[in-house]
Amino acid sequence: MSSDNVIAASGHRLFPASRRIYIQGSRPDIRVPMREISLSPTRLPNGTEVSNEPVRVYDTSGCWGDPDYHGDATRGLPAIRAAWIQERGDVEETAGRSIRPIDDGYLSEKHRAQAEAEGKRNAIKYFDRTGHPVLRAKPGKVVTQLHYARQGIVTPEMEYIAIRENTKLQRARELLEMTAEGPRNSLWRQHVGNPWGASVPREITPEFVRSEIARGRAIVPANINHPELEPMIIGRNFLVKINTNIGNSAVASSIDEEVEKMRWSVKWGGDTLMDLSTGKNIHQTREWILRNCPVPVGTVPIYQALEKVGGRPEELTWDIFRDTLIEQAEQGVDYFTIHAGVLLRYIPSTARRMTGIVSRGGSILAKWCLAHHRENFLYTHWDEICEIMAAYDISFSIGDGLRPGSLADANDEAQFGELFTQGELTQRAWKHGVQVMCEGPGHVPMHLIPENMQKQLEWCHEAPFYTLGPLTTDIAPGYDHITSAIGAAMIGWYGTAMLCYVTPKEHLGLPDKDDVRAGVIAYKIAAHAADLAKGHPAAQYRDNALSKARFEFRWEDQFNLSLDPEKAREFHDATLPQESAKTAHFCSMCGPQFCSMKITEDVRRYAEEQGLQTTEALEAGMKAKADEFRQAGGEIYQASKP
Amino acid sequence: MSSDNVIAASGHRLFPASRRIYIQGSRPDIRVPMREISLSPTRLPNGTEVSNEPVRVYDTSGCWGDPDYHGDATRGLPAIRAAWIQERGDVEETAGRSIRPIDDGYLSEKHRAQAEAEGKRNAIKYFDRTGHPVLRAKPGKVVTQLHYARQGIVTPEMEYIAIRENTKLQRARELLEMTAEGPRNSLWRQHVGNPWGASVPREITPEFVRSEIARGRAIVPANINHPELEPMIIGRNFLVKINTNIGNSAVASSIDEEVEKMRWSVKWGGDTLMDLSTGKNIHQTREWILRNCPVPVGTVPIYQALEKVGGRPEELTWDIFRDTLIEQAEQGVDYFTIHAGVLLRYIPSTARRMTGIVSRGGSILAKWCLAHHRENFLYTHWDEICEIMAAYDISFSIGDGLRPGSLADANDEAQFGELFTQGELTQRAWKHGVQVMCEGPGHVPMHLIPENMQKQLEWCHEAPFYTLGPLTTDIAPGYDHITSAIGAAMIGWYGTAMLCYVTPKEHLGLPDKDDVRAGVIAYKIAAHAADLAKGHPAAQYRDNALSKARFEFRWEDQFNLSLDPEKAREFHDATLPQESAKTAHFCSMCGPQFCSMKITEDVRRYAEEQGLQTTEALEAGMKAKADEFRQAGGEIYQASKP
Repeated sequence: MSSDNVIAASGHRLFPASRRIYIQGSRPDIRVPMREISLSPTRLPNGTEVSNEPVRVYDTSGCWGDPDYHGDATRGLPAIRAAWIQERGDVEETAGRSIRPIDDGYLSEKHRAQAEAEGKRNAIKYFDRTGHPVLRAKPGKVVTQLHYARQGIVTPEMEYIAIRENTKLQRARELLEMTAEGPRNSLWRQHVGNPWGASVPREITPEFVRSEIARGRAIVPANINHPELEPMIIGRNFLVKINTNIGNSAVASSIDEEVEKMRWSVKWGGDTLMDLSTGKNIHQTREWILRNCPVPVGTVPIYQALEKVGGRPEELTWDIFRDTLIEQAEQGVDYFTIHAGVLLRYIPSTARRMTGIVSRGGSILAKWCLAHHRENFLYTHWDEICEIMAAYDISFSIGDGLRPGSLADANDEAQFGELFTQGELTQRAWKHGVQVMCEGPGHVPMHLIPENMQKQLEWCHEAPFYTLGPLTTDIAPGYDHITSAIGAAMIGWYGTAMLCYVTPKEHLGLPDKDDVRAGVIAYKIAAHAADLAKGHPAAQYRDNALSKARFEFRWEDQFNLSLDPEKAREFHDATLPQESAKTAHFCSMCGPQFCSMKITEDVRRYAEEQGLQTTEALEAGMKAKADEFRQAGGEIYQASKP
Repeated sequence: MSSDNVIAASGHRLFPASRRIYIQGSRPDIRVPMREISLSPTRLPNGTEVSNEPVRVYDTSGCWGDPDYHGDATRGLPAIRAAWIQERGDVEETAGRSIRPIDDGYLSEKHRAQAEAEGKRNAIKYFDRTGHPVLRAKPGKVVTQLHYARQGIVTPEMEYIAIRENTKLQRARELLEMTAEGPRNSLWRQHVGNPWGASVPREITPEFVRSEIARGRAIVPANINHPELEPMIIGRNFLVKINTNIGNSAVASSIDEEVEKMRWSVKWGGDTLMDLSTGKNIHQTREWILRNCPVPVGTVPIYQALEKVGGRPEELTWDIFRDTLIEQAEQGVDYFTIHAGVLLRYIPSTARRMTGIVSRGGSILAKWCLAHHRENFLYTHWDEICEIMAAYDISFSIGDGLRPGSLADANDEAQFGELFTQGELTQRAWKHGVQVMCEGPGHVPMHLIPENMQKQLEWCHEAPFYTLGPLTTDIAPGYDHITSAIGAAMIGWYGTAMLCYVTPKEHLGLPDKDDVRAGVIAYKIAAHAADLAKGHPAAQYRDNALSKARFEFRWEDQFNLSLDPEKAREFHDATLPQESAKTAHFCSMCGPQFCSMKITEDVRRYAEEQGLQTTEALEAGMKAKADEFRQAGGEIYQASKP
């Protein structure tokens, strides 16, 4: 992708030294956003300057990262996919289901009005949906990306994704070629690829995107009622993605806070977002999030259904659940977590566990099953659920309601029983043309992680795996973003396509903004570490650019290329606050007289001065030059003083 | 080890609900400290209480964690090993080398007096060494733990270590048996052990400790001039250890700050400590640390040697270096990092690297080699160095001066060339009876980590590996405790014996107390995750206790069992500050009405009420009970209300 394809550019709203650019595809309305980080030039010891190419990075921030955006949440994001959806000719507008007070947890209009009148913190604000029609598939039509992919159709969404995943790749290749000065790091090249059979291609074409979707190995969560969404892909032959969770609860939080958390999450790099709200105002919270969210939004519909029956799982019915699916489908939720694998026969074995059932969805279904002594109604109604999902292109995230809540329970009968059933459900969903990913654990010690990936690949037929961590120890509450980043990086390497983040507040409380940031960054690290280990050709590009900046004492570039430029700068300033230190050829760790990178510069300059390229030649020349070096030496730092 | 061996106990100085206990060995002066965390009882749904055994954990805090300790740094810690060292009859007192102004970076007494007179922040305070004789081996004697182990002698140090590593193990076994209610987590049992050939025994006896030391697979860093040290072991068949770095530099820090950082480091769990000071007052800083430090202290002697020649590497000589070794040996440094593997022939290939030589020691030696065009003088004087080390029982930490400073340079020729030479040096040191561990990288992507461990095991003959991280990506300055904890956990699993911590300030500035805490906790997580994955039978004990507390809503126990109780409590309080929430049967994530652990309790109680133990029987009974359950249901929460 040459720079000619950049169709617009302006200063980035969120990060320093960055500008928002758009890469155009085969048609004018395919405009893929990227963030381009400009770098300062390298100053060679002889004083000359050599410019450094800007670095483009994948950008999840949507319009919120575009300085030209109006930024008014009441208007919502532009519907960039509206035309693509309409053009396919397989959807129709519908009046949609009427919104009812119970959708927001109120028994009647009167209750709702009363809550508003009392000016409660959580009183409902309405999002004005004028101009946001409700769509569904025409009768008999399947409107999923999987369906199109199987027909051989490359949708605009697929092309968008190819550009999004691929531009970085191409730039990376350019850079790798540019900096190759011989057989550096030859072992690296021998080790690319991962041991689990994934094969990241050398180039990600729209056709490759289509083929991966067609065989079920990747999904594009993209509800036809969420046209604001910027298409992204989840599959193990693409960049590893991360999900963030937000959601109010009965105890804390409000709509404004949730929308702000969403913007915060996509700023730092969250690829998808789950709204796990419970309590009041679920419907309107979700509406505000969806209309302003550039990334796919997932939910666990059973949470809302449970609210509608006063929190009593045994009163849940298929009709209430079905109605909730339609409600959320019409709003535009992109993927649903459905705990249909919590089968009656798996439940009793959880009584022997250290920590029983820790998934909320799993617990609700377990209780329902026990109360009725009937098979999980999500399992028995699976085909009807699939039909609904197919009519809106909602992807499944098949829940793992029996995931282990402690290391002691990892990889046990209940967990693997459900995983096996997730595989069965996957194949049935595929028959309906519905996209599927499968959720995974949880709490798993490192040596039991590989088995999770192996079984999932085998039993779930390579449908993308989407894991929560896993946490590799239970003894660090307050630091579970770290315990789980370890497991997440490993399972990402092994082939997990998306990692659900864990914040430092896990097990302890609701995450605030700082926690969301800490969780997202920890997971961007895990995902990127996995991309590197999988041998994604684009992945090392940014590492190399940052390492080069670090080595050359381009401090500002080092900050700006990092996942969290603000934090990097703040930490540097804590020791050396003065502005001059940002261009200093030393750092606080070693002081001005004593810096290893400084000394290495001398070694390198020495090697360069010899004009020799090979080890043998260097060695031959060294002896002759040694005396000269010593005479000039002692003040070797001298040469590079400004 | 029964509780009869507890010879003293009192409230712990540092952590809540904890007391300091000492376990006595075969003689009264073998007293191994532990921290015992008391737990509150489990409240069963029927209201009865069942007590929970206290949990004992490995304690690195030394006397600083004993409330009976005077806490006066000017007096230093008690010399618990003094009698053991004297009893062996192979050491003698010596006047010791005279301390000179240059040891602290001053050219003369006058310069030093002037600095003091000017009241500079870094002016020297003397530690009074009266009553701290300087020891060395009698002529011809080797006084190392390796030497004794080879003779078949089980030293008090070895017995101390066996108790320290083993008590936890025995308690763990008791707990595992106590809570076994059937074939829980049977897969777990199939997976213990690690794929790299380590075999943690079922019981760690003094004889096992001796045998591991004798074959060079574990070391006990314990200089005869550091009798204050509480013996600990570094080897892959023991608990994975972590090292912390502190040290002043020309830019910041003072002696008081460094001593306080040491106490802080051992409070949180640092197993060893490296003093990497540069600049002024190196000698006295180290003296204060050593006299107050209960864990082994390591240094990089070349740093101080370089100070003595005004920071000019090419002026370094063997005599100056040797003098520095003696100086530090007499002070009591327990292990030396010596970069003897940076051979002349490896240096030129670093010129092709992305980030050249990033190790300070490596850079200094490289510069020396280039200036003189002679082989590294540490390599050529290796046998003389070994003789010095053998006379004080200082362990080698053979440096990796050519470790990669970026992913691009990982596993390259320079790195592996040096590793091979580390192996040669290991064998030569062993001939002198000197204990050895080998340092490792650095910056390494996940897929290249296994090769590091494999080659180290093979080339260095199973001498313990001691790695810095490795960092698994380069793009997260400000979060490198996380990027590196991922690599550290993995390589610990594969067999690395000790992990050198990385703080959030890595690459950016000098760590402060918060950074040290964050770094230590991240590494305690990595080390513990590795212990679990290696199948160390003691490791899961604490996880199980914490998970059980979590499941039973024993909030205080959950905090107190965690690696950082203060942080866990602080995070919980951020959402639910009121004291009643600490005993609440719900948490802020889900609110009082909607908690998965709560629902699981019901599932478990239901299963228990049936009096049925197997899945089959449960299923048979479920149908009959379903109606009854529903009638009682809807208010299932009721039964467990206080």
